[in-house]
Amino acid sequence: MGSANPAASLVFAFEITAHCPNTRARCGCFHTPHGVVNTPRFMPVGTLATVKGVTPAQLKATGAEMVLSNTFHLHLQPGEQIVADGGGLHRFMAWDGPMLTDSGGFQVFSLGDINTINDRGVVFRSPRDGARIDLTPERSMAIQMTLGADVAMAFDQCPPYPATEAEVAAACRRTHAWLERCISSHTKPDQALFGIVQGGCFPHLREESARVVSSMGLPGIAVGGVSVGEPAEEMHRIVRQVGPLLPDDKPHYLMGVGTLPEMAIAVANGFDLFDCVLPTRLGRHGAALVGGERWNLKNARFRHDHTPLDPSCSCPACTVHSRAYLHHLIKTDELLGKILLSLHNITQLVRFSSAMAQAIRDGCFAEDFAPWEPDSPAAHTW
Amino acid sequence: MGSANPAASLVFAFEITAHCPNTRARCGCFHTPHGVVNTPRFMPVGTLATVKGVTPAQLKATGAEMVLSNTFHLHLQPGEQIVADGGGLHRFMAWDGPMLTDSGGFQVFSLGDINTINDRGVVFRSPRDGARIDLTPERSMAIQMTLGADVAMAFDQCPPYPATEAEVAAACRRTHAWLERCISSHTKPDQALFGIVQGGCFPHLREESARVVSSMGLPGIAVGGVSVGEPAEEMHRIVRQVGPLLPDDKPHYLMGVGTLPEMAIAVANGFDLFDCVLPTRLGRHGAALVGGERWNLKNARFRHDHTPLDPSCSCPACTVHSRAYLHHLIKTDELLGKILLSLHNITQLVRFSSAMAQAIRDGCFAEDFAPWEPDSPAAHTW
Repeated sequence: MGSANPAASLVFAFEITAHCPNTRARCGCFHTPHGVVNTPRFMPVGTLATVKGVTPAQLKATGAEMVLSNTFHLHLQPGEQIVADGGGLHRFMAWDGPMLTDSGGFQVFSLGDINTINDRGVVFRSPRDGARIDLTPERSMAIQMTLGADVAMAFDQCPPYPATEAEVAAACRRTHAWLERCISSHTKPDQALFGIVQGGCFPHLREESARVVSSMGLPGIAVGGVSVGEPAEEMHRIVRQVGPLLPDDKPHYLMGVGTLPEMAIAVANGFDLFDCVLPTRLGRHGAALVGGERWNLKNARFRHDHTPLDPSCSCPACTVHSRAYLHHLIKTDELLGKILLSLHNITQLVRFSSAMAQAIRDGCFAEDFAPWEPDSPAAHTW
Repeated sequence: MGSANPAASLVFAFEITAHCPNTRARCGCFHTPHGVVNTPRFMPVGTLATVKGVTPAQLKATGAEMVLSNTFHLHLQPGEQIVADGGGLHRFMAWDGPMLTDSGGFQVFSLGDINTINDRGVVFRSPRDGARIDLTPERSMAIQMTLGADVAMAFDQCPPYPATEAEVAAACRRTHAWLERCISSHTKPDQALFGIVQGGCFPHLREESARVVSSMGLPGIAVGGVSVGEPAEEMHRIVRQVGPLLPDDKPHYLMGVGTLPEMAIAVANGFDLFDCVLPTRLGRHGAALVGGERWNLKNARFRHDHTPLDPSCSCPACTVHSRAYLHHLIKTDELLGKILLSLHNITQLVRFSSAMAQAIRDGCFAEDFAPWEPDSPAAHTW
């Protein structure tokens, strides 16, 4: 069995700074070569080396600390070598804070036109130009090392939802075998490799996967295969089951989750990091996240409403502009409307995650975020 | 004959602070209730109460001082009353510097589906919803007073290019009659009314129009009916003829012009203010203004070019990012590419206009901007 690069565990220390007395929630400092990530923390997604519509300076002002980018997309365009020639992903996109790249696996299985998939890897046609692309654990590691984020993700097989137990079991076996190959081929000491727990909706497969991935001594562990179309209760069940199975002393990353109730439930079960494309996608479509609700700014109710979008929010949309102005921008399809709502939505999710951190430090997380109550995270407590 | 509101001439003083010894170029301070405009100065266009893709803070950082907005567009959407209820145009769009609204005349004649046009005014169908809209000099003044910019423009008739002498003469007569009605109905003391010289490409009509409009004692004078499709030489001829006919002690605004050679020729002939939608329109289409050229950032030549777009420029596109990154953003149709190039292009035009001001102050405008030489304004002098 492979084991993680020992140098990485020094650079990528995870200090736990506070525990919730009632749940598994904790605050931590995840150290990376580009600074500390204070957890729990929501991470915005910058698919193509840009968080859509947001400048690096604006992104910093949202409170975001760690930013994601997508290996699959960057490999297709502009190609990892151009990113490397531009000084690596941080310099290329001018984000000097911590960064993480996914492995490309999720996108291959959800966006790619797959030709063959076997234990070696995946061959698919590029959705951009039809070119044949060959992705293996080794290739994913090579691309991610070339991109140069602080954290690389293992190349896994994420089965679709729904899938049969046999399909999920096979995907787990392959994910675990690929993880060993990722560990063997990952040789960049200033980049951490996180493993990914799969197992779909099958508790014994999740348990087995958590055990295998946890045994590798990696500097961080992710849970994948959630938020792929399963009912919310199913996701909650997985989060509650798997969270406690992960090693306490490593950061736990719940992939693709960025709704308030789900983040609260996950934090209560020991998760630390979250990502989701929703804040910018909703923003581009004229929707704002306010107090746990989604508001469509196109609605006529905002036409004459000259109050701030969310008076408790410190983003430019809320401190500089009014609902009536945002409504006007969205109605007229102005770029600035998409930009301001994207900034606001990112700010909301980052702020929600850092409010959970503050509540953990203050000993009131369980009371204020009550993650076991359905529809909990009260808008009034953050 | 009507005369301008006497209070306005106090609020809207225009101080000339430097003269070019070789040309009619001058530097000035145009005072408005929302601050001073240092001329010569390029003014970005915020058609729908937003400079497309740019936040007010970003706009301020370009060096822009005065911003335009379009009465025609704002009347259709969201309607001037909503803007007024939101605290007026400055507050509504969160621009606390000087602002100017056009009269709607140009857009009615270029975008409207005109039903009737006579000495009373224009009746047209809204391009938005087909509603019948009646625009007269009095109505344009009422809308602009409700919007509340620092400067309102007279409602004029801008004939198309080409037009016969008889058509242009008729449009001039109407423009002058309408100007008197604008003056009579404009009653907002903290808003300046600028008159507009028309006359197409006919020198005697331009001369007559300059004489009539100059006689009204208004706090500023614009020249319209340029940049409407006529050849560049024709525009240069008009600028050279009309500039010297305008009263020295008032700001001179050349409408719709924002290319470097034309701005330099106009400054040499005593013009002070300029506007153009080109910087943001080009930016949205992936083009950058660099050293007097237009560069298409989609071109493959930029793919591997990790140098700054324009090393002499202080905008975020140039100081934070590389040509290769901008190329990547434009190729992938990312919002951030449009935003950064819009910011860069506005910065370039503002910077060019303020470099002319500096050259006037330093006594080297004629030498360095050589506006009588074809293809002059040397990229190396600003």
